[in-house]
Amino acid sequence: MGVPLPRKDLFYIPEGVIYLDGNSLGVLPKGAAARATEVIEQEWGQQLIRAWNVAGWMDLPRVVGDRIGQLIGAPEGSVATGDTLSIKVYQALAAALKMRPDRRVILSDNGNFPSDLYMAQGLIGTIDKGYELRTPAPEDVAGAITEEVAVVMLTHVDYRSGRMHDMKAITEKAHAMGAVMIWDLAHSAGAVPVDMAGSNAEFAVGCSYKYLNGGPGAPAFIYARPDIIEGVEPALSGWLGHDAPFAMELGYRPAMSTERLRVGTPPILQLAVLQEALKAWDGVDMDDLRRASLTLSECFIREVTARCPELRLASPTDPTTRGSQVSFAFAHSYAAMQALIARGVIGDFRAPDIMRFGFTPLYLDEGDVIRAAEILEEVIKTRAYEAPEYQTRSRVT
Amino acid sequence: MGVPLPRKDLFYIPEGVIYLDGNSLGVLPKGAAARATEVIEQEWGQQLIRAWNVAGWMDLPRVVGDRIGQLIGAPEGSVATGDTLSIKVYQALAAALKMRPDRRVILSDNGNFPSDLYMAQGLIGTIDKGYELRTPAPEDVAGAITEEVAVVMLTHVDYRSGRMHDMKAITEKAHAMGAVMIWDLAHSAGAVPVDMAGSNAEFAVGCSYKYLNGGPGAPAFIYARPDIIEGVEPALSGWLGHDAPFAMELGYRPAMSTERLRVGTPPILQLAVLQEALKAWDGVDMDDLRRASLTLSECFIREVTARCPELRLASPTDPTTRGSQVSFAFAHSYAAMQALIARGVIGDFRAPDIMRFGFTPLYLDEGDVIRAAEILEEVIKTRAYEAPEYQTRSRVT
Repeated sequence: MGVPLPRKDLFYIPEGVIYLDGNSLGVLPKGAAARATEVIEQEWGQQLIRAWNVAGWMDLPRVVGDRIGQLIGAPEGSVATGDTLSIKVYQALAAALKMRPDRRVILSDNGNFPSDLYMAQGLIGTIDKGYELRTPAPEDVAGAITEEVAVVMLTHVDYRSGRMHDMKAITEKAHAMGAVMIWDLAHSAGAVPVDMAGSNAEFAVGCSYKYLNGGPGAPAFIYARPDIIEGVEPALSGWLGHDAPFAMELGYRPAMSTERLRVGTPPILQLAVLQEALKAWDGVDMDDLRRASLTLSECFIREVTARCPELRLASPTDPTTRGSQVSFAFAHSYAAMQALIARGVIGDFRAPDIMRFGFTPLYLDEGDVIRAAEILEEVIKTRAYEAPEYQTRSRVT
Repeated sequence: MGVPLPRKDLFYIPEGVIYLDGNSLGVLPKGAAARATEVIEQEWGQQLIRAWNVAGWMDLPRVVGDRIGQLIGAPEGSVATGDTLSIKVYQALAAALKMRPDRRVILSDNGNFPSDLYMAQGLIGTIDKGYELRTPAPEDVAGAITEEVAVVMLTHVDYRSGRMHDMKAITEKAHAMGAVMIWDLAHSAGAVPVDMAGSNAEFAVGCSYKYLNGGPGAPAFIYARPDIIEGVEPALSGWLGHDAPFAMELGYRPAMSTERLRVGTPPILQLAVLQEALKAWDGVDMDDLRRASLTLSECFIREVTARCPELRLASPTDPTTRGSQVSFAFAHSYAAMQALIARGVIGDFRAPDIMRFGFTPLYLDEGDVIRAAEILEEVIKTRAYEAPEYQTRSRVT
């Protein structure tokens, strides 16, 4: 048994806000500003260039990676942090394709986050050797894994529907067909229990600004299975992935560890804030988290279904195949979400017609969820979404 | 005429320190911590996900890019920020190779920063179609530009020697031979006047934690010549380079502007601190800056040459072919630099035998430079570098 959840005292949540968008940008951990100030004033300001050694900046990507590793069942030294998730997708995919040089199919699904598919398309265009990206529906992926497939690249929990793939079964199928497996954990890390080592998948990638509360633009992470790392050929072979970066050799020689998946100079300020945010996970049992997550999301589904028959559940009803979010489809989703946000309940909209709600057991309780459902009911019942101010689309939602 | 230099009041420099390493990590601008706190507490903490619109986060990469553009002679809308410099090198090089599909040679030089060469090697391995990276000595580059060359990729100011390429002449030669030109401005942006538009080069990349004082791991930038941008094929085709990121389409369609060189979610905290740091450039005339830079570096060369005959100048004597740094070769460079740092004069060591000193007119004056030369003389004359504590090499220098 871990520490009791939620741990609202560790986070700052604005007065009057029920925040159901932690699956997009997590809330502010109370220690973040003080940590940023410390890095800026004490480390950068006082130690200057020496901070790379003295303040441990150079090791921070590994140290933070190890902490994330604990949350996704990855052994020490198997997770590197830095860059954005899109870059990490490219890194994993390029390395995976090199492991199956005789195959030309990348299998994903049409529920994958678009950037993952875009990065695959960019890589295919760069290599320009007839690679094909296949994107069947999520439920058809397992059947689409054939011996043509070089790499299966999936987001574990669907960003739109919350549908969760069976990581172990799909990885097994991929391996049975001789394909390399890449999991994107963007909506899994800190949201559901993940057992990377147990899954036997070769690669995983993820971001840290959602359930891990690392802040806007917090660095991404990449996992490589320890037994394959020495054969991983880095496409993005930056100097900090070199075996001896400061030897300034002219030829690239990859580090003999996960460090080879580092690229350039790490974003120290963002990493330090993320490191601070990760303290909220100390003592948290991931099975407790999962139970709390399901209690919250089941409660929300029950309440909304009863109160708002106009909305259609767009997430799986079976909780074992759902991550830590719930989506509803509704013809006026965009405007209804704006009306909801104006009333203090923050979720988000995803094209074309999805209202999306994330459940973060670190800082939400059942009272929040019931209150959110009540306010949603009011928005729907009173057709508050018809007000003109909710019709104009902003660039980001 | 611009504002008078230096502007020491805008920066925090530790008591007793003469900082000649701003070419590695710039010093702390006084407003940085307050800006970070504002982003964390007001924007992230209060506005949460809404800050992407309300606080202008989504536009920050372009806004900051435009400010950097002013310092390198790039027109509005032609510079994107984000990622690390190594990633930006890869982006530029991959795009440039696509523009010359019938050629197979990438020309750089053996004074280029290793990560640029490593990224080229990684891209060559990824494409795997027989590309060749040639790295003659810097002074032989112009003669090595032949009609075999697809791309000339050079760092404008050599990180080790400070030697500066003739940007206009080399770009002209590259174009005359039908090659695409990429300039790395890591040691140029904020250090010397740069006229990207006037150079006619297709691409430039650079970092912002050196002379631009953006802090450890501050984001990189990339410039593409406006008339070519619509033909640039992004290898790193992330969602924020898409023409309509939030439409969540399955197929990548690049934005019809420099935005297509954006990749993933931008590092907001680092970008905001960089934006604050760039305020120090308001009113600065780049010709004034160059004059001040040459005054400082000529003074340092004169003083050190007179005081320390044991050291050999490893930078060009002709100031017109030198950036804003001065390097000396010395058999005991590593230990001597440690001894110097222990005495408050911070420069750095670059393998195998270089003591490197950067001159940053925003926060250095001639008194600092003379004092630094005096302390260096003392270290050399007294053989202070022989003390055991200066012999052990740290990982980063």
